[in-house]
Amino acid sequence: MPMDSINYNGLFSEDVGSFFRSPVREIFKKVDLNSIYSFAGGYPSVETFPLEEIEATMSEVIAKYGGKAFQYGATQGVPELREAVAKRYGVPVERVQITSSSQQGIDVCTRVLVNPGDVVLTSNPSYLGALQSFCSYRADIRGVGHEEDIDAFRKAYEAEIAKVKAEGKRIKFLYMIPDFQNPSGESLTLEERRMLVELAQEHAFLIVEDSPYRELRYEGEHIPAMYSLAPDTVIHLGSFSKIFAPGFRLGWAIAHPDILDKIYVCKQSLDLCPPIFDQYVAAEFLESGRLDANLKKSISLYRTKRDLLLSLLEEHMPEGVRWTHPEGGLFLFLTMPEGFDAVKFYDTALDAGVAYVAGEFFHPDRSGKNTMRMNFSFMSPERITEGVKLLAKLLENQMS
Amino acid sequence: MPMDSINYNGLFSEDVGSFFRSPVREIFKKVDLNSIYSFAGGYPSVETFPLEEIEATMSEVIAKYGGKAFQYGATQGVPELREAVAKRYGVPVERVQITSSSQQGIDVCTRVLVNPGDVVLTSNPSYLGALQSFCSYRADIRGVGHEEDIDAFRKAYEAEIAKVKAEGKRIKFLYMIPDFQNPSGESLTLEERRMLVELAQEHAFLIVEDSPYRELRYEGEHIPAMYSLAPDTVIHLGSFSKIFAPGFRLGWAIAHPDILDKIYVCKQSLDLCPPIFDQYVAAEFLESGRLDANLKKSISLYRTKRDLLLSLLEEHMPEGVRWTHPEGGLFLFLTMPEGFDAVKFYDTALDAGVAYVAGEFFHPDRSGKNTMRMNFSFMSPERITEGVKLLAKLLENQMS
Repeated sequence: MPMDSINYNGLFSEDVGSFFRSPVREIFKKVDLNSIYSFAGGYPSVETFPLEEIEATMSEVIAKYGGKAFQYGATQGVPELREAVAKRYGVPVERVQITSSSQQGIDVCTRVLVNPGDVVLTSNPSYLGALQSFCSYRADIRGVGHEEDIDAFRKAYEAEIAKVKAEGKRIKFLYMIPDFQNPSGESLTLEERRMLVELAQEHAFLIVEDSPYRELRYEGEHIPAMYSLAPDTVIHLGSFSKIFAPGFRLGWAIAHPDILDKIYVCKQSLDLCPPIFDQYVAAEFLESGRLDANLKKSISLYRTKRDLLLSLLEEHMPEGVRWTHPEGGLFLFLTMPEGFDAVKFYDTALDAGVAYVAGEFFHPDRSGKNTMRMNFSFMSPERITEGVKLLAKLLENQMS
Repeated sequence: MPMDSINYNGLFSEDVGSFFRSPVREIFKKVDLNSIYSFAGGYPSVETFPLEEIEATMSEVIAKYGGKAFQYGATQGVPELREAVAKRYGVPVERVQITSSSQQGIDVCTRVLVNPGDVVLTSNPSYLGALQSFCSYRADIRGVGHEEDIDAFRKAYEAEIAKVKAEGKRIKFLYMIPDFQNPSGESLTLEERRMLVELAQEHAFLIVEDSPYRELRYEGEHIPAMYSLAPDTVIHLGSFSKIFAPGFRLGWAIAHPDILDKIYVCKQSLDLCPPIFDQYVAAEFLESGRLDANLKKSISLYRTKRDLLLSLLEEHMPEGVRWTHPEGGLFLFLTMPEGFDAVKFYDTALDAGVAYVAGEFFHPDRSGKNTMRMNFSFMSPERITEGVKLLAKLLENQMS
């Protein structure tokens, strides 16, 4: 086999690929999600997809646009969807680029901004799909842990920034999920957002604000997006995956036109343009008011599921296990006692029929061995209940 | 504006971006395609999109798969589409990866295989979207011109390979469009394909065979795909854009499972998975036989348009202009006399209302200044006729 003689390692080479091979995707390769109790993944609930309304919208799009809906289209996205997004978020249309999934938004920002060795600051933990992307471009990822006290939090970032400068390296951007973070489910306060924006402006780096869960708030008041605090410093990434349906693979980037122009050129060689028909469907779904009506129902459903999960954890989890109380989003984060290894425990859990994602995978410094992420959007209340009972029993056995 | 103080150049930096900023996309930014005679772009004809059948297929998919059609899916593509592609091309399903456009296929191969400075061999000229992608990963692109004589052709490649080796560089792959090449419209003979595969195996590099037009043959016999000659040496890229509709942004890669595994990991951080609903629609369209029935009609339509363009060129083009006679695909290639500059002439043409793509953009060595690519699939016969007459008149004025 000639494969052996061929050097086929590239920029995205074997070592990079293996280290951040997605543990979630690896699970999905092996098991049918519906055959286990899955707290893994960030899947919306299938019942939030309004099939009849989607089908009606599709027929409307075909009647309205005809063949245009199936032709190539503008690299920036179809005008109708860019305008609908601009209107919804109160930004000028020239600041909107449609992306073929918000994951692509993360990837294209990294590709446009980062040279091998450049530093990307992140929270510790942070979204593993973003860490994968940073890693694939050979970024030097520096995760900074959260501190309750704002001065201590600022100091933690300042210390990392000083360290990077002392090493003669450049920080290209700070990657943040300020609303209902993946994996922790927690949000940044307004004060914290302001502090980070100030740091970015002081030290001349950008902020990539990844905001797929922002509209899924179940309690409390909306906190201004980091983008609104500094529109020329922040690239805001949004997604239709959690407010409409992930199967369309559509998101958007809102940013300074100079940055969008770079993304535009880059996207030409990535995939020419986002899926056209899907964009018209999303635009029509949004403009007709169907998206908001459906979103309201999804929020109510997810609030119930979050409350259920919180009460089940309270009732069944063994002593020594702690968890976050997210005000929105799809996840909460569990911390087991020191010494617990959620990666090792994983096989036990999966064999018994319950899946989660080990927290270690979200930590750029590979800490957090005693943590795990739990999703509450995907399963039915009945299966969430059975799943928590099973997981709690397994944990109890393991920890005793 | 803080933008000035921020170093936002990354791997895909300003110089790379500007050099290979797509001239076609730049045209589309400025003018409505339907307001000019457009021989630019590689757009299929809108009338080849069977709207009623697509709408029926969509309803069938929703009835058959329900919410699953709008959920996240496997990174490799949905099993139904992978199997349909595997069956159509007679390859094992584990050798099929669905891509979010065949442009993504090119990009992901480059990302997985190329480190900055690595050599990518191409034909000279070659597809500019591929050159953009290679360029963005800082590949060292070496274009080799075609020679009618097989020995001379082989020698031209051997000379380039020897040169690369003497420089201590590595060739990662040869990028080829063997069927109805973009931009020339010409195909490689079986002998030429065999020769290139032999060179690849002898010198341990891969071949990326980009084959979006393969099924659009208007005369002559099919020539075996390079993949079929050496399935472990060749990565075969296909596309639904020309045989179904580009608005779905779906393609496929057929390759050795070891290479697909790298693409699979890479695609996780690129966009998680291709659009799900679109994949089910493509699978259903293919399996139901609708695709082949529709393709037959498209081939007949495009044959007529090609013949029309060829006869119009014969009738109207001034002395000294030559062109290729493609047996399939969407393009033919014009050569004007030495000294003609198709880039400079472009503004004259666009002002008069006719667009083409200057051949220089397809030449990695920036030669071919006196060439242009003409598409014959997009416009109606009437507009092709008017467009050629106009272009011929403009050329005559320019050349006299």
